[in-house]
Amino acid sequence: MNTPMKQTAVVISQPGGPEVLLPAQVLVPEPGPGQLLIRVAAAGVNRHDCLQRAAGIHHDGSPVPGLEAAGEVVARGPGVTGFAPGDRVMALLQGGGYAQYALAEAAVTMPVPEGMEMVEAAALPEALFTAWWNFFFLMNLAPEDFALIHGGTSGVGHLALQAMSALGYRVLATAGSTAKVEAARGFGAFAAFSYREEALAEAVLAATGGQGIGALLDVSAGAHLAQDLAMMAPEGTIAHLSAGGGAALSVPLRPLMAKRVRITGSLLRPLETARKAEVAQLLRRDVWPLLGDKVRPTIAASYPLAEAAEAHRDMEKGSHIGKFVLVT
Amino acid sequence: MNTPMKQTAVVISQPGGPEVLLPAQVLVPEPGPGQLLIRVAAAGVNRHDCLQRAAGIHHDGSPVPGLEAAGEVVARGPGVTGFAPGDRVMALLQGGGYAQYALAEAAVTMPVPEGMEMVEAAALPEALFTAWWNFFFLMNLAPEDFALIHGGTSGVGHLALQAMSALGYRVLATAGSTAKVEAARGFGAFAAFSYREEALAEAVLAATGGQGIGALLDVSAGAHLAQDLAMMAPEGTIAHLSAGGGAALSVPLRPLMAKRVRITGSLLRPLETARKAEVAQLLRRDVWPLLGDKVRPTIAASYPLAEAAEAHRDMEKGSHIGKFVLVT
Repeated sequence: MNTPMKQTAVVISQPGGPEVLLPAQVLVPEPGPGQLLIRVAAAGVNRHDCLQRAAGIHHDGSPVPGLEAAGEVVARGPGVTGFAPGDRVMALLQGGGYAQYALAEAAVTMPVPEGMEMVEAAALPEALFTAWWNFFFLMNLAPEDFALIHGGTSGVGHLALQAMSALGYRVLATAGSTAKVEAARGFGAFAAFSYREEALAEAVLAATGGQGIGALLDVSAGAHLAQDLAMMAPEGTIAHLSAGGGAALSVPLRPLMAKRVRITGSLLRPLETARKAEVAQLLRRDVWPLLGDKVRPTIAASYPLAEAAEAHRDMEKGSHIGKFVLVT
Repeated sequence: MNTPMKQTAVVISQPGGPEVLLPAQVLVPEPGPGQLLIRVAAAGVNRHDCLQRAAGIHHDGSPVPGLEAAGEVVARGPGVTGFAPGDRVMALLQGGGYAQYALAEAAVTMPVPEGMEMVEAAALPEALFTAWWNFFFLMNLAPEDFALIHGGTSGVGHLALQAMSALGYRVLATAGSTAKVEAARGFGAFAAFSYREEALAEAVLAATGGQGIGALLDVSAGAHLAQDLAMMAPEGTIAHLSAGGGAALSVPLRPLMAKRVRITGSLLRPLETARKAEVAQLLRRDVWPLLGDKVRPTIAASYPLAEAAEAHRDMEKGSHIGKFVLVT
């Protein structure tokens, strides 16, 4: 099979709303050392893509968004072992997923299990890498600790709940509506609550038998930090995934000091490949055996690649459960 | 020697300025299990005491402030080994140091080295426990990391600089005046700067060869957090000792996430005795051999116990270097 010189991709034509996502003809990239070229069958849509679009950021010089994809290996760069052309794979990307062809580091590329659809596989990498990196590397979650995810039906949330609960971790969740709270329980939440509940911290503490939360993953830029501090276990860690609008986080120092809580945060995309590769190894060992069985993404909707703008519109409505995926 | 029933102590008579510290007759306490009764020769004065006085807090029901003292063991509670009446000791206290007699947990009581004056010994426990707990337990300082202390001539700062630099750690410091910056260098700072310097973060980064700070101890309640984040190494930790006036800390999330910096804090006094005992073991092993030689407190001034109010006035002026001590 010959790889063409040019391909159709969706680009961020300028900073703005979903309508700035436009199909364009771009060059098919060449895999460098350690890289694979993947013919994309499906690409996951992430909130990061919406923020990137609104700000008009071209990561690494490329106007094509997309942090994850599933498809078939079509070419290997120098030094790549363990993958061959024709392999069905999914990968965490540095961008470029909204396209017919995308480059991936082999170190963060994983096999698609037998019988799993590409549209499902494309929904997994960003969520699972994010959950594993945050809980098991950044926060060092111990088996005896309780974890909590704000946004239990989000892309990250619903997959983290399934994978972590299948492995015996006790993960609590919050969500924004009765239906989402119910869905979070279905994904395996040890307990789930509306984050609008006034006595949220008390309810969470009671659900943990008073122990409190050892590791809390927050995508809300600290929207409910006073509650968060009140529900933490001593020396627990809060990790932030999102800087929100860039406003400063207001941290009440007294309760932080009284419990010696740690507040941190990270960005997955700029993380060194070597560290992502460590995350990949742990995922292959612990989560890949569960895929398709105990861990299966909920696809909120899928769209043809050319309708990426529609996917962004739906994501920004915020009423979905699970993941949006683009198909080529 | 008979221990009297009553003694003179200085009490917080009501919330307020230094003048609310008044001498009073109080009962001499009896040592409980694991405790020692110490006849106090000298007691260290700490900023915590000033905050406690202003707020009128009576820790554990006692109106007598004072978190550290040096003196002679006069009685042992049940189960105490390793100390005998007549031993010259210094101890970290839960309060009660501004008195002729004070209770101490044997687990956080340490011998006064030969040839060291009691007034010097009384200036050591709070500073050394604070530094060791924060850097080696809460922040896990590694030998290859750079540390930084805001307030390099404070009670904690000047002793931490001496002890840590003698052990080979590279500790930078800030201070509020040219004289204090010079003094911090004299205490062993790897580099020292005015914290009023506009390009402070750049100067600190340059001094570390670009590596940045791995562990930063802040007593200022985050007064210069934007600078702090800019001078941190990736995955470095900032530990807060003081909640300041209780106002919230404003944390810019983007730079925190970009470097995966951890922000935490702690209070030494309410920490479980078992954990303080672990700190004590490390101090005895690493710092006690250096006392009187490479580690020696600077006594800014000493006062008779009855003049505790004067000591508080001088501490709140903030122009001193080192420690204030009360002598009985």
